[in-house]
Amino acid sequence: MIIVSIVPGTGHADPQPSPIFVKEIPPGFRDWKLISVAHEEGELNDIRAILGNDIAVKAFREGKVPFPEGAIIARIAWRYVPSDENNKIFGRVQSFVPGEAPPWYLQFMVKDSKKYAATGGWGYSQFDKDRKPGPDSDMNACFPCHQAIKERDFIFTRYTP
Amino acid sequence: MIIVSIVPGTGHADPQPSPIFVKEIPPGFRDWKLISVAHEEGELNDIRAILGNDIAVKAFREGKVPFPEGAIIARIAWRYVPSDENNKIFGRVQSFVPGEAPPWYLQFMVKDSKKYAATGGWGYSQFDKDRKPGPDSDMNACFPCHQAIKERDFIFTRYTP
Repeated sequence: MIIVSIVPGTGHADPQPSPIFVKEIPPGFRDWKLISVAHEEGELNDIRAILGNDIAVKAFREGKVPFPEGAIIARIAWRYVPSDENNKIFGRVQSFVPGEAPPWYLQFMVKDSKKYAATGGWGYSQFDKDRKPGPDSDMNACFPCHQAIKERDFIFTRYTP
Repeated sequence: MIIVSIVPGTGHADPQPSPIFVKEIPPGFRDWKLISVAHEEGELNDIRAILGNDIAVKAFREGKVPFPEGAIIARIAWRYVPSDENNKIFGRVQSFVPGEAPPWYLQFMVKDSKKYAATGGWGYSQFDKDRKPGPDSDMNACFPCHQAIKERDFIFTRYTP
């Protein structure tokens, strides 16, 4: 009898690695409540809104960490551009608004402590302007940077009343 | 018999001028859906979110003007400040976030073609950081400037998908 192993040489028989990336856009996210807004300069050069599902927004408003299971935070980013039409009316360069969707258009963090145990209980995701998920290589940078704010359960954004 | 007039000399008997300003904050506005975001430089120096009630958001998404009766648009503004905590983690000045509420914290436009006929069918309002309505003198500047975009039913903000 010949036993053929189809498991690569990782030393254990689990055929699936822990999923750490979210591959589907949470439905209805564009209707979610506002958590806050921000502008990122430099290479990103975007203006962004951070929305949350009801579980996430409730936790933010109560100031509770860690976030409960099922919390999802959505980050929408747009190119940061001057509004020529507004500036013309105001008579000066004053107004900056969202432009086109950049390659890093949508990002989500999904709380599932078991499924995403390897990355602090949050799954990370990124979708481009065509709503296609980004490669895992892009995603590998998420958790190391978010670890810097472990005491806030890995969330940079603060709720803005 | 002596007839005493108590009507000031305006030539007609209507004791109430048309209301053009909204004096109460629409309840639940902070739960409304996101229309867009913006940054205003100069004296304002704020970062802002524009939210809408369901009537307003539906009209925006369908690209319909004029907006239907009952549409309300909310503009929340916060001081535009660098995020020291984010920048420390990123290792560069990159991140700008909402700071404190400025005196022009909340603004609303309420569509009621009859009530606000004198100002294009929209009532205007402004509330400070203590949620007190601003003086009418502040509000008198709203309509003249919004008239520049009459063809979009007086709304500067464009919906951002």
